[in-house]
Amino acid sequence: MYKPERLAAFCDGVIAIAITLLVLGLEVPSAGKVPEKELGEYLRSAIHPMMGFITSFILIGTYWLAHYVIFHHIKAVDRIFIGLNGVFLLLVSFIPFPTGIQASYRDDHYAFLFYAIIQFACSVSLLCIWNYATSHRRLVDDRLPDDSIRKIRHRILLPLLICVVAIVASFVNLNIGRLIFLLIPVLYFVQPGMDQLWGSESQAKS
Amino acid sequence: MYKPERLAAFCDGVIAIAITLLVLGLEVPSAGKVPEKELGEYLRSAIHPMMGFITSFILIGTYWLAHYVIFHHIKAVDRIFIGLNGVFLLLVSFIPFPTGIQASYRDDHYAFLFYAIIQFACSVSLLCIWNYATSHRRLVDDRLPDDSIRKIRHRILLPLLICVVAIVASFVNLNIGRLIFLLIPVLYFVQPGMDQLWGSESQAKS
Amino acid sequence: MYKPERLAAFCDGVIAIAITLLVLGLEVPSAGKVPEKELGEYLRSAIHPMMGFITSFILIGTYWLAHYVIFHHIKAVDRIFIGLNGVFLLLVSFIPFPTGIQASYRDDHYAFLFYAIIQFACSVSLLCIWNYATSHRRLVDDRLPDDSIRKIRHRILLPLLICVVAIVASFVNLNIGRLIFLLIPVLYFVQPGMDQLWGSESQAKS
Amino acid sequence: MYKPERLAAFCDGVIAIAITLLVLGLEVPSAGKVPEKELGEYLRSAIHPMMGFITSFILIGTYWLAHYVIFHHIKAVDRIFIGLNGVFLLLVSFIPFPTGIQASYRDDHYAFLFYAIIQFACSVSLLCIWNYATSHRRLVDDRLPDDSIRKIRHRILLPLLICVVAIVASFVNLNIGRLIFLLIPVLYFVQPGMDQLWGSESQAKS
Repeated sequence: MYKPERLAAFCDGVIAIAITLLVLGLEVPSAGKVPEKELGEYLRSAIHPMMGFITSFILIGTYWLAHYVIFHHIKAVDRIFIGLNGVFLLLVSFIPFPTGIQASYRDDHYAFLFYAIIQFACSVSLLCIWNYATSHRRLVDDRLPDDSIRKIRHRILLPLLICVVAIVASFVNLNIGRLIFLLIPVLYFVQPGMDQLWGSESQAKS
Repeated sequence: MYKPERLAAFCDGVIAIAITLLVLGLEVPSAGKVPEKELGEYLRSAIHPMMGFITSFILIGTYWLAHYVIFHHIKAVDRIFIGLNGVFLLLVSFIPFPTGIQASYRDDHYAFLFYAIIQFACSVSLLCIWNYATSHRRLVDDRLPDDSIRKIRHRILLPLLICVVAIVASFVNLNIGRLIFLLIPVLYFVQPGMDQLWGSESQAKS
Repeated sequence: MYKPERLAAFCDGVIAIAITLLVLGLEVPSAGKVPEKELGEYLRSAIHPMMGFITSFILIGTYWLAHYVIFHHIKAVDRIFIGLNGVFLLLVSFIPFPTGIQASYRDDHYAFLFYAIIQFACSVSLLCIWNYATSHRRLVDDRLPDDSIRKIRHRILLPLLICVVAIVASFVNLNIGRLIFLLIPVLYFVQPGMDQLWGSESQAKS
Repeated sequence: MYKPERLAAFCDGVIAIAITLLVLGLEVPSAGKVPEKELGEYLRSAIHPMMGFITSFILIGTYWLAHYVIFHHIKAVDRIFIGLNGVFLLLVSFIPFPTGIQASYRDDHYAFLFYAIIQFACSVSLLCIWNYATSHRRLVDDRLPDDSIRKIRHRILLPLLICVVAIVASFVNLNIGRLIFLLIPVLYFVQPGMDQLWGSESQAKS
C-alpha cells in the first residue's frame, strides 16, 4: 500500500492540463496573412467551439471536484485503485477530441452522442473509484460514516444523471441537449439540497 | 470545509499551463519545406503575436501573483469559493484565444476590446474571490487586519484599472491601448507606493 | 546530495504533460468550415490515431507507475541519477512524435519499429535509474531487502519484454505487434503473480 | 516576505510544460490522408527539428537544474526576486518559438543567432536571480559559505559561456555552433572538476 499524495498530485496534473488544453480547440486565424473572414463572422463561427470549451471546462471541473473530495477520504491506494484512476485519466485526457468533433459536426446527432457518452464514461469511472475504495471501507477510514459515503456517491451521480438527461433531450433537440450540461454548476451551487449535502460532510470532517 | 492546499496547487497548475501555452500562438513555418518568407520578413510579421505573447504573459503572471497572495491568507475553502475560483480559471485558460484573435486582427478595434474585456473579467473574478473570502472574514484568519485586506484589494484593482485605461486609450490609438498593459510590471516594481504596500503586508505576516 | 521530492514532482509534471499532450495527435476538422468527410468516415480514419493514443497512454502510465515506485524508495539524489532521469524524461516527452508517425504511416513496418524502439529505450532508461540507485544501495535505504530490489526490477522489465515480443511479432503481422502492447495492463492487473509481487512489497514497507 | 515553496512549484510547472511542449514542434503528417513523403524521406527532413528538440530539452533541463539548486538555498522571496523569476520564466516559455524558427530556417545564420541569444538571456536571468538573492545574503541563509555561492554562480555561468562559444563558432560553421550546445551535459557529467563542485556543495549542506 502506497501513500496517495503523489497519485493525487499526478491526477491533478493530468486534469489541469486536459482542462487547459481545451482552449487549443479554438482555432485562431494565421497571424502571418490577412484573415479571410471579418472578425464578426469569425467569432460567430467560433460560437459552437466556445460553447464546447465552456461545457467541457465545467464538466472536467466537476470531475476534478469529485476527485478532490474522493482523495480527501482516501488513506491508501492499491493496484486496482491505481488502475481505475488510470481509466479515469485516460477518459478525461481524451475529452478535447470529442469536444472538437462535436464543434465541427455541430448538426450531427452522432457527434453529440459520442461527446455525451465519453462524459458519461468519466462519471462511471469516478463512481467505480469511489465504490471500490469504500466497499468494506477498503481504502478509507473505518470511521467514515455510511452517510458520507452515500452523499459523495450522490454527488458523483449528479453529472452522470445529467448526461443521461442530455442524451434523451438531444433526441428532441440537439441544442437543448447541449444546454442541459450547463445545468451542472447551477445544480451544484444553487440548489439548497446540495448545500446541505456539502454542509453535512463538512460537519463529518470537522 | 476542505483544506485549501490542493485547490491552490490545481489553480497553479492551470495558470502555469495557460501561461506556457501562449507560445503555441506563435506560428512557426513548417520545417518540412522551404519557408515562403525571408526570416526578416517572417519575424516582422511575428512582432504583433510576440507583443501579444509578452502582454498576456505579464497579465497572467500578475493574476498568479494576486492569487498567490490571496491563498497565502486563506484558511479554508467552501463551495462558493471553489465556484468563484472555477470562473477565474475558466477566464485565465481562455486567454490564449483572445490573444491570438487580437494578433490576427491587429487593426480591428473590436478584437482589442474582446481581449481587454476578458482581461478585465479576470481581474473582476479575482476581486470577487478576495471580497467573498474576506467579507466577515469568512475564509481568512480572524486576526487579519482590515488594512491588509484593503491593500490586497488595491493590488488586485491595479490591473483592473489599467484595463479600463487601456480600453479608453484604445479609442484614441490602438497601439497606445496595447502599450498601456505593459505599465503593469512597471507600476508593480518601480513605484515606491507599491513597495510600501508589499512591505507592510510582510510586517503583518512576520 | 539533494532531497528527491522536487525532482520527483518535476518528473511527474513532465510525465503528466506528455501523457495529456497525446490527445493533440488526434486531429479535429476545422470548425470554421463544413467538414470534408462524413462523421462515420472521419472516425474510421481516426481509429489508428486513437489506438496509438490509448497504447501510448497505457505505456506512459506504466512508466509513471514504475517511476512512482522507484522514488518511493529513493532517499537522496546525485548528479548521475539526475542525468539518468533527464534521459528518461527526454524519451517520454518525445513519445507523441513516434506515436503520430506510427498512426500516419500505419502500414510501414519501420514506423512501428521506430515507435517500439523508443518505448524500449524508455524501459531501459528506467532500468538504468533503478540499477544505479540500488547498486551498493547507493541512493536507497540500507535496509531495503534484496528481494524488493529484484521484484521492482522485474516490474520494470515487464514492459521491456513486451516491447521485444511486440517487435518480434510485428515481423509476422503489424497489427498483432500493436495489440501486444495492450497486454501490459492485463498482465499488471490480472496475473496472480503480479498481485503477489505488489503485496510482498507492501509488506516490506509496512 | 512570502515562503518560496509555492513560487518554486509554479516555476517547476512552467519549466516542465515548456520542456514538454517542445515535442509539438515536431510535425506529424496528417493521419487522415496518405502521407506525401516516404517515411525515410520524412524522417530525414525531421532531423533538424529533432536536433533542435534535443538541444532545447538539454538546455531547459540545465536551467531547471540550476533553478532547483538556487531554490534549495532560498529562504524567502521578495518582490524583485519574483520579478526576476518572471523574466526567467518568460524567456524559458518562449524557447519553443526560436527552436522552431531555427529548425525551419536551418541555413540562416540569423535564425541561429536568435536562438542562441534567447538561450544566453535565460542564463543571464538565472545569474541575476542568484546574484540578487545572495548579495548581502539577502534571501539565503546567513551561514551559506562564500565558496558555495561562488560555485553555484560558476555552474550557472557554464551554459552562458557555451552560448558565447557556440555563437562565435557559428561564424565559422553553423553546424559546429549547434553541436557545441550538446557539450553541456558532457561537461556537467564527465568533467572531474564539475564532480568536485557538486561534491563540495553536498558537503556544505550535509
